[in-house]
Amino acid sequence: MCQSVFRNKPDTNVTFSLINRSSHVPLAKLIDEGELREQLDHVRSLSLTRGESTWLRGNTFYGKRQMFRPDFMAWFENLRLPAYHLERVGDQYELTFEGKWPEVMLWEIPALAILMEMRGRAVLHDMGRFELQVLYARAMTQLWEKVEKLRNTPGLRIADFGTRRRHSFLWQDWCVQAMLERLGPSFVGTSNCLIAKNRDLEAIGTNAHELPMVYAALAQNDAELAQAPYTVLEDWQEEHSGNLRIILPDTYGTEGFLQRAPDWLAGWTGIRIDSGDPATAAEVAIQWWKDRGEDPTRKLVIFSDGLDENKIIELYEQFKGRVRVSFGWGTLLTNDFRGLAPNDSLAPFSLVCKAISANGRPTVKLSDNPKKAMGPAEEIARYKRVFDVGQQDAMDVIV
Amino acid sequence: MCQSVFRNKPDTNVTFSLINRSSHVPLAKLIDEGELREQLDHVRSLSLTRGESTWLRGNTFYGKRQMFRPDFMAWFENLRLPAYHLERVGDQYELTFEGKWPEVMLWEIPALAILMEMRGRAVLHDMGRFELQVLYARAMTQLWEKVEKLRNTPGLRIADFGTRRRHSFLWQDWCVQAMLERLGPSFVGTSNCLIAKNRDLEAIGTNAHELPMVYAALAQNDAELAQAPYTVLEDWQEEHSGNLRIILPDTYGTEGFLQRAPDWLAGWTGIRIDSGDPATAAEVAIQWWKDRGEDPTRKLVIFSDGLDENKIIELYEQFKGRVRVSFGWGTLLTNDFRGLAPNDSLAPFSLVCKAISANGRPTVKLSDNPKKAMGPAEEIARYKRVFDVGQQDAMDVIV
Repeated sequence: MCQSVFRNKPDTNVTFSLINRSSHVPLAKLIDEGELREQLDHVRSLSLTRGESTWLRGNTFYGKRQMFRPDFMAWFENLRLPAYHLERVGDQYELTFEGKWPEVMLWEIPALAILMEMRGRAVLHDMGRFELQVLYARAMTQLWEKVEKLRNTPGLRIADFGTRRRHSFLWQDWCVQAMLERLGPSFVGTSNCLIAKNRDLEAIGTNAHELPMVYAALAQNDAELAQAPYTVLEDWQEEHSGNLRIILPDTYGTEGFLQRAPDWLAGWTGIRIDSGDPATAAEVAIQWWKDRGEDPTRKLVIFSDGLDENKIIELYEQFKGRVRVSFGWGTLLTNDFRGLAPNDSLAPFSLVCKAISANGRPTVKLSDNPKKAMGPAEEIARYKRVFDVGQQDAMDVIV
Repeated sequence: MCQSVFRNKPDTNVTFSLINRSSHVPLAKLIDEGELREQLDHVRSLSLTRGESTWLRGNTFYGKRQMFRPDFMAWFENLRLPAYHLERVGDQYELTFEGKWPEVMLWEIPALAILMEMRGRAVLHDMGRFELQVLYARAMTQLWEKVEKLRNTPGLRIADFGTRRRHSFLWQDWCVQAMLERLGPSFVGTSNCLIAKNRDLEAIGTNAHELPMVYAALAQNDAELAQAPYTVLEDWQEEHSGNLRIILPDTYGTEGFLQRAPDWLAGWTGIRIDSGDPATAAEVAIQWWKDRGEDPTRKLVIFSDGLDENKIIELYEQFKGRVRVSFGWGTLLTNDFRGLAPNDSLAPFSLVCKAISANGRPTVKLSDNPKKAMGPAEEIARYKRVFDVGQQDAMDVIV
């Protein structure tokens, strides 16, 4: 995704901002500002190691050798993350990043991972050594029991999408290895490149909402805006083929997006369902493929929103044979500490890092779930009009 | 106990033998004979380290400095364990030790611990790395939940008596540390001297059945036999006072033992209940103290047979205030892997190592539970007559 932005919009100025949708988690009370700054400063001191660079240059991703072009790699090897702006406001932190899009976008993962891990450490800080060990023992058992359930559903394909909101790096690494041992070929990879490298796994991923959000914000008028979600995918398909041609249709409403989509998009490999009721959205996609003369059984549907083991099995049973099904399992894979600490103080929560403006214009996300919408009210109204989004069903956002 | 034997019966020849009361556990199928010999040979190569010797010489046990006399320590420092005799018979091993009592008696603990640990390793051998970790995670959680229950019963006093039939050394060490962290002063020590040394805990223990069993076997006639269980305690009290003056009354039946006991024995600090129904035995002891004009509330009752957390709490609630209560928690502390492996193949089982003869005469144990009785049938009959043991209730031996 970074390479696509680097190629197509290298000079776009963006602002990314951390948003804690779970206001009951008082991050600024839990995490010391000085320690947070130390962590963020440390990230700014990092660059690709030689081994990491070698791996990115030499590895085959999605069956493609040298996915990363030499000019991109040369830039990436010299990259240091840009400055951050941190301010405490009440019990929360305001954390924003401004600068060129290909640089700023890389803050999302470390910023979220740092805050999630520091919150966990704050909660664990006063526990006894053996109390801690038992807490992790329980978390391991809890995850293992999920994996055991999944193991009884042959044919599943699941990837780890849990980097951003993981409990901790070591914990994510443990979860990935446990999945690998127990699920075998049903575990198809991880979106964490370092873990993929260390554990000899497939690095896996798709494109995200920031692409259409920034493209949309850059539109000069309503006509350009209406076209923006397709323009971004035109740019995308110039360099990606096969399983990287996955549509993320929900940024401004899945139904309208598909109805107005150009025919070439129906030729893409699949779709990722990331908000709203997943079964409904998958049915919409299947109908759309049929309407466009495509064979849904050859299409890939990737579910990635709020998944847990029972939902995975339910969706798999519902759609297997009708489409190819795959799962990007995130927060409830790498951060399910629900019920394990007093007052559920280790339960995962909904922290995101989003593009909020591009070249001075605010970004907007509508989503298929109005609780995931963001942007200024008047812009949301405009986008709803342009994208012809009607009534939406609100669903609680757990993670 | 070894020092007492070293002082009083140094030249008695004894045979100890391993007895697997759980014939459904086919030790010889699970454990390779060559590997078992390697372990036993290794034990024979060991002697006290300088640090261990320093600790034994310098430590205060039961409030007594220099519990171990210089002549005993000099002998102990030079000791190597005597030869063993190992033979496979069907699916079991016959493992016996012959020689002088103070030397042979020290085989019991390592022989049992080795067999228990090798059996566990055999079962774990083919498990995956993360499957293994989850198995231990579950065992930790299981133990922690027991400890949490005990924690809600203030005033408890519990010691670790789980060395012989532990799952493994590392596991026992973990259990002890978990108890220490969570129970605080309710955890009063361990019978494992190495762990006591390493973790700065009280080393704790009592006397065992082998003392009266060997003394009884050495008796020249029925009159001496009837006296033997008291003779051994006369010898014992020459060097031990306070909380080491604990009667183990059940070797030849608790009731008869107490009825015929000399008055000086009622002056001892307490009693250890190790077979039969523990509450019944404790009531018998309380009544006996009352009959002998002693105040039971100043006496110590140590329960040590087949304990688990619910039994501990039940007995504590029943006897607190009426006597001082303490618990020696053994196998279900350090080896409760019930339900954690396929076919329950890690469940603890009843393996013992007992004196079976002394100076060529067979030993006999009657116990308060006929399922724990041992010895030749005609000798059991003679002992029952001499000790006037009537009807006994059989109780299943779990561990």
